[in-house]
Amino acid sequence: MNTVHVGCQLNYLVKSPSIFLLNCSVAKNPHQIVTSESLEVLPFSPVEECDVSPLGNRVVRLNAPPGELQIRYAATVGLQTESVDSNDLMETDYEKLPGDILSYLNPSRYCESDKLYRFAIDEFGHLVPGYSRVTAICNWTFEQLAYIPGSTNSTTTACDVLLQRAGVCRDYAHVAISLCRALGIPARYVSGYAVNLVPPDFHGFMEAYLDGRWFLFDATRLAPVGGLVRIGTGRDAADVAFATIRGEVDCTGMGVWATDANPTDERLSPDNVQTGVSSA
Amino acid sequence: MNTVHVGCQLNYLVKSPSIFLLNCSVAKNPHQIVTSESLEVLPFSPVEECDVSPLGNRVVRLNAPPGELQIRYAATVGLQTESVDSNDLMETDYEKLPGDILSYLNPSRYCESDKLYRFAIDEFGHLVPGYSRVTAICNWTFEQLAYIPGSTNSTTTACDVLLQRAGVCRDYAHVAISLCRALGIPARYVSGYAVNLVPPDFHGFMEAYLDGRWFLFDATRLAPVGGLVRIGTGRDAADVAFATIRGEVDCTGMGVWATDANPTDERLSPDNVQTGVSSA
Amino acid sequence: MNTVHVGCQLNYLVKSPSIFLLNCSVAKNPHQIVTSESLEVLPFSPVEECDVSPLGNRVVRLNAPPGELQIRYAATVGLQTESVDSNDLMETDYEKLPGDILSYLNPSRYCESDKLYRFAIDEFGHLVPGYSRVTAICNWTFEQLAYIPGSTNSTTTACDVLLQRAGVCRDYAHVAISLCRALGIPARYVSGYAVNLVPPDFHGFMEAYLDGRWFLFDATRLAPVGGLVRIGTGRDAADVAFATIRGEVDCTGMGVWATDANPTDERLSPDNVQTGVSSA
Amino acid sequence: MNTVHVGCQLNYLVKSPSIFLLNCSVAKNPHQIVTSESLEVLPFSPVEECDVSPLGNRVVRLNAPPGELQIRYAATVGLQTESVDSNDLMETDYEKLPGDILSYLNPSRYCESDKLYRFAIDEFGHLVPGYSRVTAICNWTFEQLAYIPGSTNSTTTACDVLLQRAGVCRDYAHVAISLCRALGIPARYVSGYAVNLVPPDFHGFMEAYLDGRWFLFDATRLAPVGGLVRIGTGRDAADVAFATIRGEVDCTGMGVWATDANPTDERLSPDNVQTGVSSA
Repeated sequence: MNTVHVGCQLNYLVKSPSIFLLNCSVAKNPHQIVTSESLEVLPFSPVEECDVSPLGNRVVRLNAPPGELQIRYAATVGLQTESVDSNDLMETDYEKLPGDILSYLNPSRYCESDKLYRFAIDEFGHLVPGYSRVTAICNWTFEQLAYIPGSTNSTTTACDVLLQRAGVCRDYAHVAISLCRALGIPARYVSGYAVNLVPPDFHGFMEAYLDGRWFLFDATRLAPVGGLVRIGTGRDAADVAFATIRGEVDCTGMGVWATDANPTDERLSPDNVQTGVSSA
Repeated sequence: MNTVHVGCQLNYLVKSPSIFLLNCSVAKNPHQIVTSESLEVLPFSPVEECDVSPLGNRVVRLNAPPGELQIRYAATVGLQTESVDSNDLMETDYEKLPGDILSYLNPSRYCESDKLYRFAIDEFGHLVPGYSRVTAICNWTFEQLAYIPGSTNSTTTACDVLLQRAGVCRDYAHVAISLCRALGIPARYVSGYAVNLVPPDFHGFMEAYLDGRWFLFDATRLAPVGGLVRIGTGRDAADVAFATIRGEVDCTGMGVWATDANPTDERLSPDNVQTGVSSA
Repeated sequence: MNTVHVGCQLNYLVKSPSIFLLNCSVAKNPHQIVTSESLEVLPFSPVEECDVSPLGNRVVRLNAPPGELQIRYAATVGLQTESVDSNDLMETDYEKLPGDILSYLNPSRYCESDKLYRFAIDEFGHLVPGYSRVTAICNWTFEQLAYIPGSTNSTTTACDVLLQRAGVCRDYAHVAISLCRALGIPARYVSGYAVNLVPPDFHGFMEAYLDGRWFLFDATRLAPVGGLVRIGTGRDAADVAFATIRGEVDCTGMGVWATDANPTDERLSPDNVQTGVSSA
Repeated sequence: MNTVHVGCQLNYLVKSPSIFLLNCSVAKNPHQIVTSESLEVLPFSPVEECDVSPLGNRVVRLNAPPGELQIRYAATVGLQTESVDSNDLMETDYEKLPGDILSYLNPSRYCESDKLYRFAIDEFGHLVPGYSRVTAICNWTFEQLAYIPGSTNSTTTACDVLLQRAGVCRDYAHVAISLCRALGIPARYVSGYAVNLVPPDFHGFMEAYLDGRWFLFDATRLAPVGGLVRIGTGRDAADVAFATIRGEVDCTGMGVWATDANPTDERLSPDNVQTGVSSA
């Protein structure tokens, strides 16, 4: 088990009474054990954790009066990475996919897989199905795209990115998800923290369903998969915004961190990105 | 309780070994009691009902060898419509929406609500929140669009339809869903049978979340809400295709029916479309 | 005749040898007589006016070495506005449009009139054809859209703007052009200076072909039509960028001015926007 | 000189008084000498050739009363193909492009070159500029796309086609045009007849501006460039529809032909597609 410290500090100027939905708390599951956790709101304000969503997303609700607002979340998490021989990980036959997995084959707001059937078959249809094919999709995505902050916005989709050949982490994930779905591989979006990400920020990556389980992939190569800490899970980035705000609010500052408590741990080295890591 | 007979017959010419996922079985819930049901496949083939999805969609899986294939589904359903005073049905405050409902505020493949915030506020922001506002959205959708078979295809979205001002039932639903979400009203897509629909076909409609429950609406005015029989529920039409096929298959014929066993029942008259009907 | 002073100053930091195509010189035609004009480049650099385009656009070419670059254009222009009774201005029958006007019925990059036939007919098909119908289109555009700097970018089209209900001057023009073309009224884009525009900037507006001539319209209502000074004419904004640059260049400052030499001239008052003004 | 016979027969059922704009007459220029030509309309109706457009498009106008309508155009054309060593054909430096050519660098309705700068540079930026680079773009287009009748419609753009990887002749041309423009090579659309095209139909191809002249290319490889007969020239297919109709009209039949009067002429063999052929 590998222990990491993650967290964020968000500063706002609230101009009218506003409602915040925050989705920056680490998800609780057998792969990531939250050993300590705090959420501070200044000025003090009662916060309420909504019912955890069926996917395990922990959404916190907050009513904020006008004025300055500071939200600070911190957690210590034990990451349980399991060694798996990725060569053994096959795509699940279409007729054997469980009913609750099928929806991850469907196109979504930012992942128009329905437009990309021929594209995906042309580029990846000839490859051996399985973990290595998803890896090939991520490699291709990495090679095709330029990582350019500011090149996309909140309405940019995978198809937009395939044409403009530039994007940020969420766009890389959307492209890889779309291509997987077009090939019949269930895939979904994961928001999270990423140990040693430079520059520090929230991160977005994806997971694919192989051999009855979900496996994480990060097409950006910005962080080792073993250092990814899940916050939220959804069809695409539309489902896991770290903050959704109703009201008149300016963001005045934001800091995110994710550091390894055992920095020499080899599993976190970038050379290990392609190791099979079971995620849920 | 109102009893209806629904069903469909689907004929295919299967050219290569193929997998069918069928989602044409009536959903089972307290509002629609399936009293008898049959699914016949000719030539005989074992069919398997997948795990029912979290939303209650009953997907049936079928491996079909090359040759002719006929699928025939029939059900008798008791529809339990509950009388509700729609004037009392309020929109749920954003801060009180349950965690598992929040995702129905998010944009989806065919419902780009994120592009329509200003549009929705301009057109409907001044109206009293509640059932009547969703009704106003459906009325507006009906008035803006022309119902033109063939005017849209499987990649057409709500935004496309708002521009071209024409569509079919799924497009009407997508537009109404998108506008609801843009206003902060959770909304989702429902596929189903519709009693006395002319011409007979599968139908698509929507439901909005009001006062802690889901209520059905049909912006097409093609069928009374009291005669809608749910098959599947999802974010939009991407989630509830009545048949998903992997393989080389031609559709050679299709028939759908939905008739009232008590045709004099007043609740099914088109004049009653706007009655509040709790749906789940 | 009304005399106006217009001009601009553009400052750049050129990082690699670059080519500039500038289209900020006032077009020369019987409606706007350029009485004096200067173009200064610092450091001194030879500039070359390309062949004037068939539409009268005066493009200036400039090779710039690395370093600071300042371009300053100034002109004094006599605007010849002709009084026309707009009630007499009819749309030209389709079968009588000259061959060189037909292309202004075609959709273009930012004006997808081919997607808006039903939209345009629904909203404006019942109105009396002629100048007043184009005015109605401009009024509708003004009322539907919010003028929000930064709400659009260089890839935003008329359809995008109709959905998001916000834009800037070029977007207003694109919407009005698209709706005109969809109704069979030739329409095109004009870039220019606008007397007393607040804040001062380059401006974009449109013109429609009525009764054998082009007439200017400005759906933004930001400036009186009588004070519009044409720079370039094209199908849409794609044709008349004020500066097209090949090379690595940062814009470090920009100023634009357009002032009336006879500020009491009544024709320039905003109350007169809808007067019929023949433009070419 | 090579002599070819081309023509078309168009049958319509006119349901309400309608206006036809036909653009199926062969363009007259030094490269294609029209030696005989006829246009028959049944029932007899006076036809009027509009002013020829600045690009040489010969648009014929026709008022049709209700009833059956047959239009038959036939021409014999001498094609003057000039032998050019394509290795010598360079791209024209940006600063030397004539003013009336610059607009063919701009994006247009179906050729969104402004979205494809990075795409074009990534794929073709490293190639030697000139005729061979345009050839490489056409080869790439041919290899990437599947020619599938019915896969696109009248609103499909180059970007749509790049994603769905399928299209017809006009789509191939739009993709090649867009990529050329994104690289700074002026490019435009040409509609025409194509000798020995199978199945016979109107054809769409493109031309690129190299060394001060326009050269034809056909990315579909369906016909030799030496057998292409120009009808219309424009920014993209929006400018050169072979028939534009206002009124209620059904097309009841259409035939197109283009045959070589000297079928042994070697220049028309498909092996010669890449020969440099000056087109205007």
